[in-house]
Amino acid sequence: MTAGHRREHDLLGDRDIPADVYWGVHTLRASENFPITGTPISAYPHLINALAAVKEAAARANQDLGLLTAEKADAISAACREIREERLLHDQFVVDVIQGGAGTSTNMNANEVIANRALEILGHTKGDYRELHPNEDVNLSQSTNDVYPTAVNVATIIAVRELLDAMTILREAFAAKAEEFREILKMGRTQLQDAVPMTLGQEFSAYAVMLEEDECRLAEAVCLVHEINLGATAIGTGLNAPAGYAEAARRHLAAITGLPLVTAANLVEATQDCGAFVHLSGVLKRIAVKLSKSCNDLRLLSSGPRAGFAEINLPPVQAGSSIMPGKVNPVIPEVVNQVAFEVIGNDVTITMAAEAGQLQLNAFEPIILHSLSESITHLRAACVTLAERCVSGITANKETLRASVENSIGLVTALNPHIGYLAATEIAKEALASGRGVAELVLERGLLPADRLMALLRPEVIAGTGTATGTGAA
Amino acid sequence: MTAGHRREHDLLGDRDIPADVYWGVHTLRASENFPITGTPISAYPHLINALAAVKEAAARANQDLGLLTAEKADAISAACREIREERLLHDQFVVDVIQGGAGTSTNMNANEVIANRALEILGHTKGDYRELHPNEDVNLSQSTNDVYPTAVNVATIIAVRELLDAMTILREAFAAKAEEFREILKMGRTQLQDAVPMTLGQEFSAYAVMLEEDECRLAEAVCLVHEINLGATAIGTGLNAPAGYAEAARRHLAAITGLPLVTAANLVEATQDCGAFVHLSGVLKRIAVKLSKSCNDLRLLSSGPRAGFAEINLPPVQAGSSIMPGKVNPVIPEVVNQVAFEVIGNDVTITMAAEAGQLQLNAFEPIILHSLSESITHLRAACVTLAERCVSGITANKETLRASVENSIGLVTALNPHIGYLAATEIAKEALASGRGVAELVLERGLLPADRLMALLRPEVIAGTGTATGTGAA
Amino acid sequence: MTAGHRREHDLLGDRDIPADVYWGVHTLRASENFPITGTPISAYPHLINALAAVKEAAARANQDLGLLTAEKADAISAACREIREERLLHDQFVVDVIQGGAGTSTNMNANEVIANRALEILGHTKGDYRELHPNEDVNLSQSTNDVYPTAVNVATIIAVRELLDAMTILREAFAAKAEEFREILKMGRTQLQDAVPMTLGQEFSAYAVMLEEDECRLAEAVCLVHEINLGATAIGTGLNAPAGYAEAARRHLAAITGLPLVTAANLVEATQDCGAFVHLSGVLKRIAVKLSKSCNDLRLLSSGPRAGFAEINLPPVQAGSSIMPGKVNPVIPEVVNQVAFEVIGNDVTITMAAEAGQLQLNAFEPIILHSLSESITHLRAACVTLAERCVSGITANKETLRASVENSIGLVTALNPHIGYLAATEIAKEALASGRGVAELVLERGLLPADRLMALLRPEVIAGTGTATGTGAA
Amino acid sequence: MTAGHRREHDLLGDRDIPADVYWGVHTLRASENFPITGTPISAYPHLINALAAVKEAAARANQDLGLLTAEKADAISAACREIREERLLHDQFVVDVIQGGAGTSTNMNANEVIANRALEILGHTKGDYRELHPNEDVNLSQSTNDVYPTAVNVATIIAVRELLDAMTILREAFAAKAEEFREILKMGRTQLQDAVPMTLGQEFSAYAVMLEEDECRLAEAVCLVHEINLGATAIGTGLNAPAGYAEAARRHLAAITGLPLVTAANLVEATQDCGAFVHLSGVLKRIAVKLSKSCNDLRLLSSGPRAGFAEINLPPVQAGSSIMPGKVNPVIPEVVNQVAFEVIGNDVTITMAAEAGQLQLNAFEPIILHSLSESITHLRAACVTLAERCVSGITANKETLRASVENSIGLVTALNPHIGYLAATEIAKEALASGRGVAELVLERGLLPADRLMALLRPEVIAGTGTATGTGAA
Repeated sequence: MTAGHRREHDLLGDRDIPADVYWGVHTLRASENFPITGTPISAYPHLINALAAVKEAAARANQDLGLLTAEKADAISAACREIREERLLHDQFVVDVIQGGAGTSTNMNANEVIANRALEILGHTKGDYRELHPNEDVNLSQSTNDVYPTAVNVATIIAVRELLDAMTILREAFAAKAEEFREILKMGRTQLQDAVPMTLGQEFSAYAVMLEEDECRLAEAVCLVHEINLGATAIGTGLNAPAGYAEAARRHLAAITGLPLVTAANLVEATQDCGAFVHLSGVLKRIAVKLSKSCNDLRLLSSGPRAGFAEINLPPVQAGSSIMPGKVNPVIPEVVNQVAFEVIGNDVTITMAAEAGQLQLNAFEPIILHSLSESITHLRAACVTLAERCVSGITANKETLRASVENSIGLVTALNPHIGYLAATEIAKEALASGRGVAELVLERGLLPADRLMALLRPEVIAGTGTATGTGAA
Repeated sequence: MTAGHRREHDLLGDRDIPADVYWGVHTLRASENFPITGTPISAYPHLINALAAVKEAAARANQDLGLLTAEKADAISAACREIREERLLHDQFVVDVIQGGAGTSTNMNANEVIANRALEILGHTKGDYRELHPNEDVNLSQSTNDVYPTAVNVATIIAVRELLDAMTILREAFAAKAEEFREILKMGRTQLQDAVPMTLGQEFSAYAVMLEEDECRLAEAVCLVHEINLGATAIGTGLNAPAGYAEAARRHLAAITGLPLVTAANLVEATQDCGAFVHLSGVLKRIAVKLSKSCNDLRLLSSGPRAGFAEINLPPVQAGSSIMPGKVNPVIPEVVNQVAFEVIGNDVTITMAAEAGQLQLNAFEPIILHSLSESITHLRAACVTLAERCVSGITANKETLRASVENSIGLVTALNPHIGYLAATEIAKEALASGRGVAELVLERGLLPADRLMALLRPEVIAGTGTATGTGAA
Repeated sequence: MTAGHRREHDLLGDRDIPADVYWGVHTLRASENFPITGTPISAYPHLINALAAVKEAAARANQDLGLLTAEKADAISAACREIREERLLHDQFVVDVIQGGAGTSTNMNANEVIANRALEILGHTKGDYRELHPNEDVNLSQSTNDVYPTAVNVATIIAVRELLDAMTILREAFAAKAEEFREILKMGRTQLQDAVPMTLGQEFSAYAVMLEEDECRLAEAVCLVHEINLGATAIGTGLNAPAGYAEAARRHLAAITGLPLVTAANLVEATQDCGAFVHLSGVLKRIAVKLSKSCNDLRLLSSGPRAGFAEINLPPVQAGSSIMPGKVNPVIPEVVNQVAFEVIGNDVTITMAAEAGQLQLNAFEPIILHSLSESITHLRAACVTLAERCVSGITANKETLRASVENSIGLVTALNPHIGYLAATEIAKEALASGRGVAELVLERGLLPADRLMALLRPEVIAGTGTATGTGAA
Repeated sequence: MTAGHRREHDLLGDRDIPADVYWGVHTLRASENFPITGTPISAYPHLINALAAVKEAAARANQDLGLLTAEKADAISAACREIREERLLHDQFVVDVIQGGAGTSTNMNANEVIANRALEILGHTKGDYRELHPNEDVNLSQSTNDVYPTAVNVATIIAVRELLDAMTILREAFAAKAEEFREILKMGRTQLQDAVPMTLGQEFSAYAVMLEEDECRLAEAVCLVHEINLGATAIGTGLNAPAGYAEAARRHLAAITGLPLVTAANLVEATQDCGAFVHLSGVLKRIAVKLSKSCNDLRLLSSGPRAGFAEINLPPVQAGSSIMPGKVNPVIPEVVNQVAFEVIGNDVTITMAAEAGQLQLNAFEPIILHSLSESITHLRAACVTLAERCVSGITANKETLRASVENSIGLVTALNPHIGYLAATEIAKEALASGRGVAELVLERGLLPADRLMALLRPEVIAGTGTATGTGAA
């Protein structure tokens, strides 16, 4: 045996493990087998914490059912709590985020780290598995195929809650601007062509409402993830898990995490199905689509400063160019766009991984977890950044906005009910060709008396400001 | 004017229209402008019917509010009912399914067809728009930007209901097989490797349960589509729609269609947002992913007949090869897989189209409608075909299945709690190397007494048949 | 037997076939088995023609090798030429475009139609297969697994050539505008912010060059599709195809089609591989991405007419709104955008179908063909439409463009080498804050003498017009 | 000023920078603005090296043209060489991999680090920009918009070369197995159903040939990336870059990197176009599709050990289950599948980012770089891992394979030319129903004399082993 090492044994033979590490032979082999990204699973602290929660819950359930001594259960629980509460040993979770084997290596890594820490707590040496064994004790009544998905669910729930908080921050930033800009008239546009007047407040209100709807959908989607398959063991038949285990483990896990988890009604189905992840990713994609659209709009509305729309100003946060002095670019919306593109690509990855599942298990959950985690955490960062470094500092160019309404041809739409679509079309054509105003042309042709015309063309009327249908973010 | 034609006028000038057609100048120009697919919008009868429903509702609302005479409203309604109830004039909806302009050409096509039919009903000639005008009467208080999305919503709801019916047929076919196969033992597999025993009934039950969950999610998603923006007109401010119009039109449309439609709280947001379509497409993708996975399994389980799994037989529905006599292929699952791939691709199309919306409108709703319609109708056909031409005729090769359990190494998993993971691993290794059975090796090594061993290895026990967690499709 | 029918037999038993149709029992079953889209394969005339070409080539090769009499070969060839040259019998190709079975039903449909037409030519009755048999004669030495991919290749090559022609039309339209606009100065923009001057000709030239590069890539990609696997039969081992058949069939097919086809070096690989289709679709996606980007730009540059960039005018092709009089929308670029989104979604479908191939065959080629065909033909229509109905009629708003350059802050970039990035940044900041011009601020601060400044700020200099690097479409 | 800091100034004001860091105020702001992934750009060493190469080339070109003193150029070059050759200062490249601003922050980070290191080399203090300035000296004649894409190109070329090496390793591993297995007969399968015989060598040869074709396509695609836009500056007009600069900088960069770089003919086009990246990503996706298909096959062929195909054995590399003793899973192919799914998702991300470019620049190149880098490096790791930890250790179960051929019904296909498709179909049906062998049924029915039959059914003949068309990996 190499000095400073302990020897461990598995199916394939013996390997020497550095004496000071908490992981063991299974982790060693997995580290060698999957040199893909260089990023260890410790990059997902929510997952590490969730694994510790599941292992503690399982130990307590095994104890309840008389399968594990109180001493062992206590030691396992203590090790798990160190990981979860004190953030200890996270650096011992070293297998690659992209790995084969349906999460087995992640589960084995957790079993080994927890076993070795529990051994120390019990006064034994790391590797003395006769006293407490990674598989026979820490993994008792479990399989990767129920532990790993359950831990992924728990980690995902926590991450989504953080995303929801970030979305709230962003929604409130948009809503505050909607309120601030509620009196500012501007031209609305359809298909990038001048349409009819509205208020800038209405425009920002729409962004707030979109986010609010997305928050609702995300909250619904994450509900599905509360259904766990703990107790299913290998394929959902519960082999080797004693009667009552699934319920006991669920109860403990709910208590430990504070989450209202439920056990799936059909564990065979639950063990092979990735539907909830596909669904959740679909909702994240929806959020990405709308965030991206909102950022496209912000970039468009702030285009200029002189040869663009120049309706709003985004707060400058850095110099925009290494060659063009004074140039300020919409870098915050741009970074949000890019996160959105990433989330949309991740959704395809998740879709393919889910579709590729075969028979009683989906072997590709690690890439699903990896992609979901990236989507959720990057969206969260994007929302907070957009709120704090961009939206909250946006200002309006009121004069530009008002002038665009007053010069607009789109005002003629309001005359439809009074002069007819055909006559209005003729006015619009002439206004466009001549550069003249709609009002003067209507008067010139005697289509309406001046006072009536002025009343109809009041932009405030056209914009419908203050009507029930146009303003609320509710 | 060309013989046999009438002359119509628009923004761009005069055009001659064949005297016998119901569409007019706007439709003519659109037909010339969009020679993309060659497929006219009449390919989507639900959409044509929905447009007729919306136009009738609008006419009645305008009548209620005193904007349209009873005579005109009656004529418009009669024309709309012919279209919806008698499927007349569908061939007059001729613009291409892929079109620019946010649906304007579809709306104009509807306005013209309905106007000309209403003119006939009123005793006038087609094209005599002084009596009843496509824009000023049929389109009164409306814009493409509220009419088109509303019609798409109504059409989508109807199509999704048909899909839900088809999914129920397929789910029941799977559930019937689950019941039929409930006693048949087989080896479960994870990662394509033999795992532990289960029943074939459990396997088919999982497919039924997956579908059931998908039905729930689809039913939820289609709820979102019940929110309409009728009354929003051009950009959501309701310009040119009189007070009370939105509610009156919604009420009439709900009555005509029998659907519990609601008006969006924020019409500016609703007019630019495609979130509900992205969401719905995401759920369709979820369904596609799981249908595809199930079909992959069916093809795998029926692989053979001699050099494959050969666990089940799919009913032969056609000769499988032009060169290999007697070959029968899993053509029905294969066609379902292909529909699934199409739906997943359509989801990307819809995602991009939704993301590309700008400011107050998404100009790309036509491709969203086109892709959604294909996804929904093809999935419906796929579900019914799979149920009727494949699943309902599946038979099991019981002997092959039972033998695979009896010969399996995976039985050793059941001994874990009794001989330990390490000893069990050694038994498994030797069984694999020697080709011998698990039971004889355990007895030879004296690890368990024979009677105890036999009790533990009863496949029925291992499969957990009859336990609460493994069987229900609930 | 039903009156007016003939009876045919296959693996599954007897079926009555309408006496007047050319298809037979295999086609009948396939039609019943795949009621997915309602679109028959006759929607792809290039494919039908290519099948006829392959069948004729195979018959001639079989004749050369003494396997088929001259009489039979002549009859088969005559039937094939009627299909290809006279477009006869296309309506007899009735199986659905989305079908299971790796194209077997399409091949069977072709075998039956050609056999029955050849029987008539020989003076026999349809269905008298003792005289000439769909499988034993028309399909002689063939399998679906080499016939179908070969026909798809031939059809694809023809379709791509048409697309290349359309791209040339569009490229030339852009290049003509580049020449027309070569003297018109404007502000270039990066990240939607005013950057530095350029010419409108340079802007349009870039669109032409992008297309030219895409044409090169597409021409390269379609080369790969010239590699066929005819002679591979079922799995590439050439079973049942006599020595010399592959080369003879290839030679005849090349002669019939006029295409420089080559036989793949490894037929086992060629029979299972869809790499060339994935590659081709990837290039179509590339084209779609750039077409979409160009159309986004056209819509942006023509935004307005008063509250937008208003730099160019797209020719009006239809009224843009049912409610907003005189509104003209960029409907042609919009329809191109939508085709691009469809092509990008189709690429995902093709990717998934290709990845799902198993072992010696990809069973999902029908959806690959379907998606590829749509992508190619819709892109072709989009290119021609964009060229003829939009690009060729674009006009420039010269005054707006020149004013934007003269007022721009971006001019200061040209002073970097003369006053330094830091000083230039200060000038830019003050210009933005004060609304004043760059030149007056530089003079006011004495940073440069007036004559030197004016020389440096000549927009023509800044735009680099006429330099070797900025103008050529080469 | 905070102790231990230096003060730097930019457009937005002053900031204190830790005295010991090489980056400056622009990097500081960018780090604060983009807290998205937590991964700094130093994670892409090829990019850092490429930036150093570009900056050195630019300095030498500026020196050639008399814009930069030899002293400054030498100092800049020395700093760049430390970065590239000695891998120093990589930890100073700290901005996030996902960032807004089209790469400006990455370029600024490079300018600052190189300037400060060059200042030290010149005997000055970090931050003493009067002596040598990040923008005015290090960035002289440059813009982010030509420097960044050029650096991305150079980095990509290097990374792709490494991937090509890895693909060669994998191809050779497959080819070696093809040679080893050249005599082993087996049943070929189409649509997962037994088809006709072939050799296992042919099967593995196909994997080698697929990779070989992919290598060719990748080598072609990376050629496109050799076209750079250095000298384009902000938008391609070359503003602020003196005559001759573009060519001088290209010449120096080619010499420094050893790469045959060429300057794009149209720099305006080249500066806004991401076509080469979309194209390259499309080819990476093609590789991913085929790697995934090959791994699907390996997993299928090794399914079992007893209830699967069990044709080949993958070398065990780790224990497969925490609950099922002795289970060994195909974890290496599984991890490759997951990398493939990631690459396919990344292609969608890159597609969206490319499509979103506007006017003279694509602001989203950072996410394109990020996704491309991941795809290339992960594919490289996947290829090497698959070759070394899986393919090279695969063994064949010869007896299982031979028995499957001898028992097969597919042998009857070889009799088609001798007894006809119809008679052969009847034999196949009876063999399937009765479980009997094809040969005995043919003899029993007297369809062929025994000696003739045996000659026809020799599997070696059927498999076409040794024929020109079936074996070569060429």
